[in-house]
Amino acid sequence: MASMIFTDPSSSVTARLLPFTRFSNSVVSLRRFVGPLHVGPLLTFPRTLSLLSPPCSSRFIIAAMATEPSAKVIDGKSVAKQIREEISAHVSKMKDAIGVVPGLAVILVGDRKDSATYVRNKKKACESVGINSFEVHLPDDASEQEVLKFISDFNHDPSVHGILVQLPLPSHMNEQNILNAVMIEKDVDGFHPLNIGRLAMRGREPLFVPCTPKGCIELLHRYGFDIKGKRAVVIGRSNIVGMPAALLLQREDATVSIVHSRTKNPEEITRQADIIVSAVGQPNMVRGSWIKPGAVIIDVGINPVEDASSPRGYRLVGDVCYEEACKIAAAVTPVPGGVGPMTIAMLLSNTLSSAKRAYNLK
Amino acid sequence: MASMIFTDPSSSVTARLLPFTRFSNSVVSLRRFVGPLHVGPLLTFPRTLSLLSPPCSSRFIIAAMATEPSAKVIDGKSVAKQIREEISAHVSKMKDAIGVVPGLAVILVGDRKDSATYVRNKKKACESVGINSFEVHLPDDASEQEVLKFISDFNHDPSVHGILVQLPLPSHMNEQNILNAVMIEKDVDGFHPLNIGRLAMRGREPLFVPCTPKGCIELLHRYGFDIKGKRAVVIGRSNIVGMPAALLLQREDATVSIVHSRTKNPEEITRQADIIVSAVGQPNMVRGSWIKPGAVIIDVGINPVEDASSPRGYRLVGDVCYEEACKIAAAVTPVPGGVGPMTIAMLLSNTLSSAKRAYNLK
Repeated sequence: MASMIFTDPSSSVTARLLPFTRFSNSVVSLRRFVGPLHVGPLLTFPRTLSLLSPPCSSRFIIAAMATEPSAKVIDGKSVAKQIREEISAHVSKMKDAIGVVPGLAVILVGDRKDSATYVRNKKKACESVGINSFEVHLPDDASEQEVLKFISDFNHDPSVHGILVQLPLPSHMNEQNILNAVMIEKDVDGFHPLNIGRLAMRGREPLFVPCTPKGCIELLHRYGFDIKGKRAVVIGRSNIVGMPAALLLQREDATVSIVHSRTKNPEEITRQADIIVSAVGQPNMVRGSWIKPGAVIIDVGINPVEDASSPRGYRLVGDVCYEEACKIAAAVTPVPGGVGPMTIAMLLSNTLSSAKRAYNLK
Repeated sequence: MASMIFTDPSSSVTARLLPFTRFSNSVVSLRRFVGPLHVGPLLTFPRTLSLLSPPCSSRFIIAAMATEPSAKVIDGKSVAKQIREEISAHVSKMKDAIGVVPGLAVILVGDRKDSATYVRNKKKACESVGINSFEVHLPDDASEQEVLKFISDFNHDPSVHGILVQLPLPSHMNEQNILNAVMIEKDVDGFHPLNIGRLAMRGREPLFVPCTPKGCIELLHRYGFDIKGKRAVVIGRSNIVGMPAALLLQREDATVSIVHSRTKNPEEITRQADIIVSAVGQPNMVRGSWIKPGAVIIDVGINPVEDASSPRGYRLVGDVCYEEACKIAAAVTPVPGGVGPMTIAMLLSNTLSSAKRAYNLK
């Protein structure tokens, strides 16, 4: 039984490590295959939704696209690279000015390979921009007290400006207790309810904004898409992506609707949107018929679907049928290479901001 | 120059005390009159909105209504009375069981007559259900430190289960500092960002829900209106009503859109709603054409409009043109007598819950 590893949709949340059990080319078995593979914390939509339309197939549509209008591709990889270069320059400047280097501490508990990969990636990303990284790796049978002790130490350590507990934690630990122990000034994931509350409230400022939704908005900004006064539909209402993305869009004066698994007519509502942010973890759920001509689409989903032509036996697709979206939307993020690379860039950005705040730098 | 006093839309927020400067029967001067009179913290919509349609006049329409379908009237006064009786019974039971009586402390700073009226009403309401009330009245030139000292004392006083600082505070005080000083376990107003954050997050529970939006949802529940899967539009995004109302509806699985002053087509979006919650403070802004047949309407607005036939020279109307709504909606809250009476009932409910929580009672 082989295992798969996917990019985590937030800085500390790991997608499930899931077994490959069967292969088939039929749509039905693809659905069955794909169902349990969606990213853990995102919401599940009724499976029947995308069976109502013919399958979204890249090979089938690519040929037709040559003569049809094509959306602008929102290149998250390139934007993330640019942001990392900016962060790198800021880190150097800070070091030269006051001799301080921002520091990020990551706590990993257990032996999950996917979690280990994410932690390794974060460490590499820190190194690439000159941020110090601190790593604690505890065994699967570590006690909650041990984890809390490390968090407490990092809370008091002035060389640490951000603390990240890699999720999921082993089942014997109380995730909420542990996350709440991270002091709000170092909550670079932005998941603390006090940060979320401030994000929701007018006239209040969160210390940190969760990395993936922050990355979504940053893409809209960097590509110059207006948000104010636009209709925005966020598909999915998870704590780590959908809900904070909706709050961020609302702060920027969009008129926001949240579509979720209990929504009766998601297609009709989504079709009203000038901006679509999809974060549900259902491959190709958002079809061309869901999209208003000229809409801007931010696709947070990273879903594996079976692909016999790939050496790995699968490929990654978003929540949005990319090929159909390209023909209708004004702009769309690809998967991979869209929102994905932005998450770690925003984590680095939050860590830098935290260090600057600690020293009252602007 | 006479002054007017209106019901506050949240338990601690006072509507502005506003001068009567001119009277006229024309719509334009009504608008001018009404503009600055809307309840302080709610949002202002472009004044031109309701000028596009003929004026919403009760006298004109009442005659026509006799033979037309009429919406159910959601009687907030009667529901609030029932809730207060239930609270009264719980308070007695608690006293008999453990000898403890819930206590609410209210801090009033300055000499605003409207604020003094609200505080007096809260005190009366407490007395009517057997809740102890504690009142501190400080002069307008009291220092922030003095207020913080009283908050600290109440925070530590085991006979106080809820603390409410009557707003607005004098301008020399930092409202945010003062509100943040109220310990979250006694934040019966539910405005603390930690409570708002928990309200926004799935899997988290706020200790308290802000009183007015809680009252709106309670009305829907008590009248047996389904929320799950329904389209809900909240008009207004204030911290004290619109935003928490949207979060509450979302928690109950409605598909929620928030319409606000930057929304380009509020009428079109509102017309899609099965449930409308309006909290903007613009008299009669929501006309019949905004309402989907069969919708349920919760009108939070309490707006004074000039009425020469009234002994007071004005009458109170909601954000929704009641007479037009009655012909189209399935149900609607009147103004006054709809949401208004629910706010204090919910404040009493929050105080009781707080006392129960302090003694681990269910």
